Amino acid sequence: MNDIKIGLFGFGTVGQGIYKVIGRSLNAHAEIRRICVRDVNKPREVEIPSALLTDDMTRIFSDPEINMIVEVVDDAGASCRIVTEALRRGLPVVSGNKAMIARHLPGLIDLQRRYGGALLYDASSCGSIPVIRNLEEYYDNDLLLEVKGILNGSSNYILSRVFDHHEEYADALRRAQQLGFAESDPSFDIEGFDSLFKLIIITMHALGVYVRPEDVFTYGISTIHDSDIRYAREKGVKIKLVAQVLKVADDKFTMFVMPEFVPPSRYIYSVDDEYNGVVIRGECYDRQFMFGKGAGSLPTASSILSDIMAHRHNYRYEYKKMGYINRPEYTTDVVLKIYVRYVETPAAELIPFIDIQEQYTSRTDSYVIGTVLLSDLIAIRPSLSAPDLFLVSFPTFFADLDD
Amino acid sequence: MNDIKIGLFGFGTVGQGIYKVIGRSLNAHAEIRRICVRDVNKPREVEIPSALLTDDMTRIFSDPEINMIVEVVDDAGASCRIVTEALRRGLPVVSGNKAMIARHLPGLIDLQRRYGGALLYDASSCGSIPVIRNLEEYYDNDLLLEVKGILNGSSNYILSRVFDHHEEYADALRRAQQLGFAESDPSFDIEGFDSLFKLIIITMHALGVYVRPEDVFTYGISTIHDSDIRYAREKGVKIKLVAQVLKVADDKFTMFVMPEFVPPSRYIYSVDDEYNGVVIRGECYDRQFMFGKGAGSLPTASSILSDIMAHRHNYRYEYKKMGYINRPEYTTDVVLKIYVRYVETPAAELIPFIDIQEQYTSRTDSYVIGTVLLSDLIAIRPSLSAPDLFLVSFPTFFADLDD
Repeated sequence: MNDIKIGLFGFGTVGQGIYKVIGRSLNAHAEIRRICVRDVNKPREVEIPSALLTDDMTRIFSDPEINMIVEVVDDAGASCRIVTEALRRGLPVVSGNKAMIARHLPGLIDLQRRYGGALLYDASSCGSIPVIRNLEEYYDNDLLLEVKGILNGSSNYILSRVFDHHEEYADALRRAQQLGFAESDPSFDIEGFDSLFKLIIITMHALGVYVRPEDVFTYGISTIHDSDIRYAREKGVKIKLVAQVLKVADDKFTMFVMPEFVPPSRYIYSVDDEYNGVVIRGECYDRQFMFGKGAGSLPTASSILSDIMAHRHNYRYEYKKMGYINRPEYTTDVVLKIYVRYVETPAAELIPFIDIQEQYTSRTDSYVIGTVLLSDLIAIRPSLSAPDLFLVSFPTFFADLDD
Repeated sequence: MNDIKIGLFGFGTVGQGIYKVIGRSLNAHAEIRRICVRDVNKPREVEIPSALLTDDMTRIFSDPEINMIVEVVDDAGASCRIVTEALRRGLPVVSGNKAMIARHLPGLIDLQRRYGGALLYDASSCGSIPVIRNLEEYYDNDLLLEVKGILNGSSNYILSRVFDHHEEYADALRRAQQLGFAESDPSFDIEGFDSLFKLIIITMHALGVYVRPEDVFTYGISTIHDSDIRYAREKGVKIKLVAQVLKVADDKFTMFVMPEFVPPSRYIYSVDDEYNGVVIRGECYDRQFMFGKGAGSLPTASSILSDIMAHRHNYRYEYKKMGYINRPEYTTDVVLKIYVRYVETPAAELIPFIDIQEQYTSRTDSYVIGTVLLSDLIAIRPSLSAPDLFLVSFPTFFADLDD
């Protein structure tokens, strides 16, 4: 096993965390040989020799000593160019950019197979929780039924502040940004896209199927109101932003990201603040629950370190499940039970409910509870972005699939 | 990748579970070719072709088609003979026998290196929770500080019944045995040995150091009384049987198994009934918590299936941390804060307390709370087995190591 000489792209919160973590980790036998940043003169918290920095990516790719690329740049376009270039050169790459990976996964798998390089990205999904590798290696059999979790620390932090600390939504969002949990574009977190990208990656390693982000129903928490919180409190449940992929038949699965009413009996009920929690359910082992810090400089950096060390031992994702017999197919032809709160928008007219079970109207906030086809929600997704609407799903709808 | 043809030893609860699970798992490409049992005529719940059964182990080892051994026999001596024979033949083996593995680990590692076979035993520790493989592969760096958990489902089930359901200890034990959670020798569970064996295996994969079971302080729950439960309830904590290994300095670690007062703020507080829960703490990622079913036929069988499939992809434990720079040393020179309840035995005279903080005496039950050296507890371990004594540790003693 050779020593690892890293070319690092990006030196923000996570990049600086990696620098610290590698310094503490003697047995990694890894060192950062050069760091490519946009602006070498920008003042930074971590002091490093200025010779390490460059703004010219060719200085990394032309250095024959560098035998691994780690990229933690914020920009998905730049991330894609870096990872593609590295894979074309057959170099191993560690990436934390879930948006880029979720969008380009089939192409990235192809590049790995064609040029023999390896792309590792456990750090991209749930920070320090080893979800991807466990789905790929440990739950690599036909028994897997469902992966469901709170995958975004920032939105979960906001919901916790609002729920447990009775804070205003805007204050909670601001605080999450100050603490560095939130992505630079907050809509990533609060509109559910960050969770969606992680779910796309998880689904590939859980079931061996790639689903394009644009084909998945995604609904965030930005329009949550006091009345929704009051409703949930009265029912003794919390509202959590949940991402899930689950088999609905032997040969079909569905997936979506949306707020859910979570009762105290569920594992994810107690996942608060910036934490992430994932439930893996299988036919014989019931439910496994993994819980940990999903975001932040050092947790993400230590997860990147795990990927670096995995490469040291020649580990690579083999995407085994892509070759499985009877891979299930993605379907949106499933019935969900949802709560829709509205003010002006007439929810019962807008949404093609199959059946309405409850209806409450008042001058300020009204709601409808009913069942609807997921495919119908996808069809009318743009109009669901009205600022006076808020949707929450009920977990109990799949009666035999409770967690 | 070839198809896997298994020679199975043992066809009790777990063995029958394996038979069922493999039948359901198309993509395992595995089949059970022969099953070696003590008594071929014993009536069994699962119906199998009688030609599959044999009581002659040579019929398995002489079958050239069999390319993997799975052994789930109850007897540690027989388990050792089977695994040794398989490894000598360079065959891959999956074993669930933690007592055997914990006692013979150095020899088993040696046999694997000498003959090239691989021994996998994730199923041996915490059933369906992938602790071993995650410690070996994902937390394979210098950042790991502590692994602590509830590793025995049966004693945890008993404590849950006693605590949450106000049952009598003896009734709870009987019920655990009826439900099949308990090992055939109940002292394994309730005296902490099952937890100890798992902790020995975990320590090897967490820190790369083998500690002999007889060198570790182990104390179970068999002498718990109503007064202990009352005490814990009054303080708002639960008593859990906890196994832990933790770094106490950069170059030292300690480990022990004993009941602990667990406050509601800890992850393991909510691990009830037959569940297992493990907290992995690291320097940068804070705490990871894994939770799941630790015992039972199908959860253990699905874990064995994970080991079988891991072999299919040529996975083996590499015991990497044994070769690490600055491996920490085992020490028992650490101070614990403990509660000792007694009736007749004069606890304050028996135990060489460094400092006594509280003392309560009554005609029926008295207790002392004080600090003591772990090495001193080990020295007087035999006399601590008096039936009127019960020891519980306080987790908060390591002030900076709280979980």
